[in-house]
Amino acid sequence: MTSKIYDLTVQTYGRSQLLNITGEVERIVSQSGIKEGTVLIFTMHTTAGLTINENADPSVVEDILMELDKIVPLNDNYRHTEGNSAAHIKSSLFGISLTVFINSGRLLLGTWQGIYFCEFDGPRQRKVLVKVVAE
Amino acid sequence: MTSKIYDLTVQTYGRSQLLNITGEVERIVSQSGIKEGTVLIFTMHTTAGLTINENADPSVVEDILMELDKIVPLNDNYRHTEGNSAAHIKSSLFGISLTVFINSGRLLLGTWQGIYFCEFDGPRQRKVLVKVVAE
Amino acid sequence: MTSKIYDLTVQTYGRSQLLNITGEVERIVSQSGIKEGTVLIFTMHTTAGLTINENADPSVVEDILMELDKIVPLNDNYRHTEGNSAAHIKSSLFGISLTVFINSGRLLLGTWQGIYFCEFDGPRQRKVLVKVVAE
Repeated sequence: MTSKIYDLTVQTYGRSQLLNITGEVERIVSQSGIKEGTVLIFTMHTTAGLTINENADPSVVEDILMELDKIVPLNDNYRHTEGNSAAHIKSSLFGISLTVFINSGRLLLGTWQGIYFCEFDGPRQRKVLVKVVAE
Repeated sequence: MTSKIYDLTVQTYGRSQLLNITGEVERIVSQSGIKEGTVLIFTMHTTAGLTINENADPSVVEDILMELDKIVPLNDNYRHTEGNSAAHIKSSLFGISLTVFINSGRLLLGTWQGIYFCEFDGPRQRKVLVKVVAE
Repeated sequence: MTSKIYDLTVQTYGRSQLLNITGEVERIVSQSGIKEGTVLIFTMHTTAGLTINENADPSVVEDILMELDKIVPLNDNYRHTEGNSAAHIKSSLFGISLTVFINSGRLLLGTWQGIYFCEFDGPRQRKVLVKVVAE
């Protein structure tokens, strides 16, 4: 089996932000030359995440971030003194890796699905690993 | 390496519902003829999810859905006008893919573990991709 | 392709606890002799989970557990009579499996990332499956 790992650098601009990286992942899969397989995406941070959600109406992403701030308040008598405990908790709730199938060289995503990098403690420059596995 | 992707169609009957699809996944693995490997399950929707949880007492599933409605209220001044923002948020919290090991042709699940399709914005007909990977 | 599955037994000591198992996973990967591939980690329980989060300041783990107890209260008129519905819900929120890349025989983790077994209904003896897949 062949697999290749690619680095993706992501620059975020807000404290909380969902960044659509579907195009970047598609380009990497295309660049790999692998037509049938799986793409595994992993972010190397503990105050960020990865998710798949609606790619059409940007208000969905706003609602996700707004509601997450209600579920995990920014300040809540946390012990960790860096002020980013909420970001750590959101990271574990959303998860930091994704699995997407590749068929005929294309990502097998639903019509409304986009791949998002989730910044919970930005703005920062972030690193995402994209592994393309041939099957 | 060999892998095969199978389509699974799921019909849900309520707005929120957890549907046990363990039997369907087992049948697909059996049909694939693959004895050692991994099964990757992925749903192509943004208002649904997949999870593994208790397969015995049905009150666990009721508690999960009831508590999720408290964590992510159906109405909460969301901007998205389709009325299903809560479903989008639940989808990202639970995730839309699962990984289960196959050993001697059987799913390596714990005694109490069942695989559930999670409907958060039904009733609808939904699509799940099941990929069986030989190792 | 080669893959090997290893059993990892984990003893927890509190009702809720995050146990750093990075060293155990590293040892298994080393023992497997596989230099390039992926490690898939899966726990066979419905009241536990797996997550990757901060490995340095132990107050992060305390904040995660404290805040999770606020998001999913231990008692909330649940129907399941075993008293551990909150643990089942946390399990679905965090998830029960992880994927980590292996490069040159080492786990590709970020500087601050540790792999945690999440006990939500302890103390108990728990079982984790660690599958190392060569690519």
